[in-house]
Amino acid sequence: MSATHLPLARRAPNLVGSVIDSSTSLLASQTHDIVRFAMGAPSDDLMPVRVFNQYYGESTPGKYTYGATDGEPELVEQVLALTQLQGIETSADRITITTGGMQGLDLACKLFVDPGDLVVVEGPTYTNGIATALSYGAEVLEAPLDENGLVVEELPELIARAGRTPKAIYTIPTFQNPSGATLSRARREQLLELAERWGSVIIDDDPYGLLRFEGGPVPGFTQIAPGHPLVFSVRTFSKILAPGLRVGWVDAPTELQQLLINAKQAMDTCTNVPAQHLVANFLKDGHLDTHLRWVKGLYQERKNAMRDSLRTHFGNGVRSTNPEGGFFLWLAFAGAYADIHTQKLFEPALRHGVACIPGPAFSTTGAFSDALRLCFATSSPERIDEGVVRLKRAADEMLEGIA
Amino acid sequence: MSATHLPLARRAPNLVGSVIDSSTSLLASQTHDIVRFAMGAPSDDLMPVRVFNQYYGESTPGKYTYGATDGEPELVEQVLALTQLQGIETSADRITITTGGMQGLDLACKLFVDPGDLVVVEGPTYTNGIATALSYGAEVLEAPLDENGLVVEELPELIARAGRTPKAIYTIPTFQNPSGATLSRARREQLLELAERWGSVIIDDDPYGLLRFEGGPVPGFTQIAPGHPLVFSVRTFSKILAPGLRVGWVDAPTELQQLLINAKQAMDTCTNVPAQHLVANFLKDGHLDTHLRWVKGLYQERKNAMRDSLRTHFGNGVRSTNPEGGFFLWLAFAGAYADIHTQKLFEPALRHGVACIPGPAFSTTGAFSDALRLCFATSSPERIDEGVVRLKRAADEMLEGIA
Repeated sequence: MSATHLPLARRAPNLVGSVIDSSTSLLASQTHDIVRFAMGAPSDDLMPVRVFNQYYGESTPGKYTYGATDGEPELVEQVLALTQLQGIETSADRITITTGGMQGLDLACKLFVDPGDLVVVEGPTYTNGIATALSYGAEVLEAPLDENGLVVEELPELIARAGRTPKAIYTIPTFQNPSGATLSRARREQLLELAERWGSVIIDDDPYGLLRFEGGPVPGFTQIAPGHPLVFSVRTFSKILAPGLRVGWVDAPTELQQLLINAKQAMDTCTNVPAQHLVANFLKDGHLDTHLRWVKGLYQERKNAMRDSLRTHFGNGVRSTNPEGGFFLWLAFAGAYADIHTQKLFEPALRHGVACIPGPAFSTTGAFSDALRLCFATSSPERIDEGVVRLKRAADEMLEGIA
Repeated sequence: MSATHLPLARRAPNLVGSVIDSSTSLLASQTHDIVRFAMGAPSDDLMPVRVFNQYYGESTPGKYTYGATDGEPELVEQVLALTQLQGIETSADRITITTGGMQGLDLACKLFVDPGDLVVVEGPTYTNGIATALSYGAEVLEAPLDENGLVVEELPELIARAGRTPKAIYTIPTFQNPSGATLSRARREQLLELAERWGSVIIDDDPYGLLRFEGGPVPGFTQIAPGHPLVFSVRTFSKILAPGLRVGWVDAPTELQQLLINAKQAMDTCTNVPAQHLVANFLKDGHLDTHLRWVKGLYQERKNAMRDSLRTHFGNGVRSTNPEGGFFLWLAFAGAYADIHTQKLFEPALRHGVACIPGPAFSTTGAFSDALRLCFATSSPERIDEGVVRLKRAADEMLEGIA
């Protein structure tokens, strides 16, 4: 006996689950001796736990009751101060505090995606970004990505072939998940033009932008075209502070704010209030800048360590991207390892004690079976080397099986 | 220039906003000298703030990173212990931790409601419950309510007239919001039979069930029909502990759990982890029972105080319900006050320093214009009396205007 006769799988898609047979709890597990390249999260020792606990222990007015749906005013104020530092023109009536960046994506899709609507995404892209769009009935069109991000030049041809314009274009423009690529300024400008031509919303998901550890800055959509009516910016403190807090924000046209409030009311009423106060006070007391300078140095070191380890242990057997910030390397097997199917590598790798997500989990098409996403942010250089050694053991074992 | 050509108002409905011209932040305001009968929240002095702050200051493993989407295992364990105390048979594979009860409703609608589906709701009912269903395209059918809850006997006739069976039946069976009514056991059994006949999901939203301060218990759906495949139970710690924590749970058929995890992944990834640890530890250390005994005594006192004040100041000018638990009185103007339109009373009442929600906010039909929802949980007996005096002043002023 079941109450539904419509495809639940469509409303609650499980893209990662269709690729790898492993529960999130295993991947997130703190207790196993697994080198964790899988989840996109800072390591526990890079989160300001002591300071957080101190703030959490303090009384703040209204800490435990309902907050305003658009966010605690003191946090909105700090978000404005933070964006101002980045040269972004925005205002309180454009900011809505969200329960992590994920809720920002959920809100964008709730407002803009109707069943059958075309949504352009990057291939590969963040799995749960696709999942949210699919859950609202989107038809997803994956557009190619290169080292300068989404290949915007190819979009007109792809859209012409699709026979209709996209309702939304979902992009992770900076240190993209999973590739680490950053969309060039020229392409950002082109994308804005295309969005205007098609009347498409750009869902500008940028969780990593503040984690640039090398290279020159590339201006964001909100800097190139302040207050653009088609740019819906999704931001989060998950990657720059701690994902367990589930605090993010949306920077979107003023006309949308009441709709965002209405929609969020019917999702979770308001974002966890103590976490909003904690983040607001942490920012107000000036800790963020110090914290970011510290972690960015470590992330750079970890990225370099991972690339070094890959070179040492795999030689020409892998190619990897070289991101200037963020959390992820995108690795493709090559040479002697070219026949590795990463979906099949997942289980042996986990058995050998290293977790990383196979390429096909970042796509609806089954592509990228030669690729892996490796998060370098969670592990020390020593653990990274151990993880790469374990990955090599699993890959070698697999190659023997193939041979 | 707008990116959408479909009615946004439908996807992000604002039922309260269409009735009263006031922002949530005003109603939730801590700074005004307004007697707060509006929001359904415990008063700050009834939340165990000191103990919460103490727990929040402690380090717990994995406190700041991503948690499992279905919830922190230690909280699931405590939820199971709590339900066991109530004689409810359930198991970990039926429990999903949610970001407040609101997310439980969002999940239910995401899984079960397609555009055009019929959803039965109580008239009046919880505004955001309707809003969530509407946001997924439901056609809402409001069924009448009396002092024994939803008038289940009238459903077959209503459904026959609608010409199709409901996909879901949304009920708040215990100390209903806004009426305070409790669905009788006989009606619960009848409703289960109808749900089986129609293949409808019962969305069993019970935030107040643990707040019975008088009268004999009425068994819930999960006690009458353990593990029933059509019962989707939504629970929360918002009303028994503190709404700002945004922690609740869903108790639903095992077959749904993976779908709930998938859907929640695409909503907010996981519920705020520190709040889950706090609630788990608070329950594990046995504080909940002591806390509930304490607040229930006070809520009973406050309900009686509110009824006494209404009698003293309005005499036969109002009728009100007499709930055996929960937070709300439902008041209808009568006698000399029979012509009061509560939607028009909202603004003068706020001006006189008392906030309460007009009846039409709990319906899509504009009905209940003679009614008000009064929350007695937020204010001391003295403040309650002051609030009722202010309400009378506003009503008298309005009557003078009408006369």
